[in-house]
Amino acid sequence: MDKNRDSIQAIIWRDNKLLLLDQRALPHEQIWLEYEHSDAVANAITDMVVRGAPAIGITAAYGVVLAARQAWATANNNWKQAIRSSIARLQKSRPTAVNLFWAIEQMTTLYDSLADDESPETILLKQAKMIHDEDIAANHKMGELGADLLENNSTVLTHCNAGALATGGFGTALGVIRQAYADGKIKHVYADETRPWLQGARLTAWELQQDNIPVTLQAEGAAATLMATGKLDWIIVGADRITANGDVANKIGTYMLAVLAQYHGVKMMVVAPTSTIDWQLHNGADIPIEQRAEQEVTMFNGELVAPVGVPALNPAFDVTAAELIDAIVTEAGVVLSPSTQNMLQIKE
Amino acid sequence: MDKNRDSIQAIIWRDNKLLLLDQRALPHEQIWLEYEHSDAVANAITDMVVRGAPAIGITAAYGVVLAARQAWATANNNWKQAIRSSIARLQKSRPTAVNLFWAIEQMTTLYDSLADDESPETILLKQAKMIHDEDIAANHKMGELGADLLENNSTVLTHCNAGALATGGFGTALGVIRQAYADGKIKHVYADETRPWLQGARLTAWELQQDNIPVTLQAEGAAATLMATGKLDWIIVGADRITANGDVANKIGTYMLAVLAQYHGVKMMVVAPTSTIDWQLHNGADIPIEQRAEQEVTMFNGELVAPVGVPALNPAFDVTAAELIDAIVTEAGVVLSPSTQNMLQIKE
Repeated sequence: MDKNRDSIQAIIWRDNKLLLLDQRALPHEQIWLEYEHSDAVANAITDMVVRGAPAIGITAAYGVVLAARQAWATANNNWKQAIRSSIARLQKSRPTAVNLFWAIEQMTTLYDSLADDESPETILLKQAKMIHDEDIAANHKMGELGADLLENNSTVLTHCNAGALATGGFGTALGVIRQAYADGKIKHVYADETRPWLQGARLTAWELQQDNIPVTLQAEGAAATLMATGKLDWIIVGADRITANGDVANKIGTYMLAVLAQYHGVKMMVVAPTSTIDWQLHNGADIPIEQRAEQEVTMFNGELVAPVGVPALNPAFDVTAAELIDAIVTEAGVVLSPSTQNMLQIKE
Repeated sequence: MDKNRDSIQAIIWRDNKLLLLDQRALPHEQIWLEYEHSDAVANAITDMVVRGAPAIGITAAYGVVLAARQAWATANNNWKQAIRSSIARLQKSRPTAVNLFWAIEQMTTLYDSLADDESPETILLKQAKMIHDEDIAANHKMGELGADLLENNSTVLTHCNAGALATGGFGTALGVIRQAYADGKIKHVYADETRPWLQGARLTAWELQQDNIPVTLQAEGAAATLMATGKLDWIIVGADRITANGDVANKIGTYMLAVLAQYHGVKMMVVAPTSTIDWQLHNGADIPIEQRAEQEVTMFNGELVAPVGVPALNPAFDVTAAELIDAIVTEAGVVLSPSTQNMLQIKE
């Protein structure tokens, strides 16, 4: 496999429009949706047309470009005033992934520096594309750094989808898996199906299948049994927000895996770009955790599975304490045994 | 709630036929299937029309009654020879729940003692009904013993369905929960949805809703987060086979919960009749674990959710080591801190 080949891309800017691969329809249909308005982009993030922390950040950056175009067209020299509500809407699209706020801040900091009487679209688009390109480059770098941590002939487990679909391309956790597989270091990949949204079954299995990387699905409940067999070497996951002490918010079920990994002597790797680190937060207790609709649990594939009226808990993310993590891999370097002190190694 | 009210029954003998409530259609439809032939009963067990270790045992006992009727009708005095293939088929219907083998042995031991020239149906039916009645009585006894272990105002989590549907009536784990709720000891019940078969969402939530016991569903991946909140006091589950040292085979995901419970200081209770104990096996490593079809993971309601061709692991059960369990509750008494030595307390 050519590590520079990004066979899968879910975010494309073309003909002055943002195109998103509708991840709700995968793996059976590849539907591209077109966006020309930032509010529609915000809805696409909320509704999980696009998901995955880095992909949400990139999408929001393009959303700011569209917001600026609208604001300029309607308000001209007052565009910085006019854009505010669109920015606020993008910021409210999802609460947990810090890449969203990071990317929007990159964009707003830039446009604050622009003149009021000049169309902002071109320069903002250049910035959004740079965020996108840098994310892909970061993924390749993390792929190399993460693969270096694996022994030959490793068996790994991943959870949710931290792949090309969740990023600008190549992936974070799946970037490491792609690179390690190309290096001959991975024998087999297990993927948790990842209820309730089934990102593992629908997205990760699809991505790995596209790249001919051997993958076997399992329900989350089977992960502990797999670890008990002694077959598993590493758990490799992405992150939605990492705090200054190395605590990690990621897809619900990640914390479960980290506790089980410690008990079974399996190693735990978190792969995320530095844009996922929220240096403002001291630890994971401060991370806002999105609670999503109960229907995501009580329904399956659009069909009600539970009795009518039974409530459900549906936290989209959980928080894994730094001490349960062996390595945080970023494009700025690897933090082993993450802690407030050790995290400073990658704070420039 | 009246503890003697068995509002839900899934196994009924009526008009010389066995009636099974088709658990594949719950909670949306209540379909009763009729059986007059033992091979069809064996298929019903394999196909999970009926599931749950005690319910499988009771169903198999009635299956032996039907097999005896057939054998007598076709072979008369040679019925003990003629019945063998039907018995073998019942024995092969599922591998893990030892109650199946236990119940069949109760029945075959009885018919071995019968004369060759007398119709065996009446006496075998009496025995099958006794197995059924004794299971319900055992569940009420376990309900009391298990409820005694709970403090007032407890919050509990259950996994899969170990309720009236999984037994002759009242339930094992749900029997304890019913009794404890009636005693005012339970504040709230959480139920894991229990992939891939969704017994928690489809069956446990339905049973508890029928009895107005407050229940909230969650995906398995959320169980660790619930424990981390400190809200949870006990995990209460059933069992498919318990070995002489107190190791427990139960629905896939139980072992995961037991490891997480130990880490979080949550207590773990296993509730099962003594017919679930396999004194022949020294420990859980010897329990045959059923691997079910990959399609139970990759498909839902006949629709593929994973990409075509992606394989899946689907172990139906896992094994929890005795040292992870705080209490095994049987109708013969409670074993605290189960071990080979402590298990002798309930071996008559």
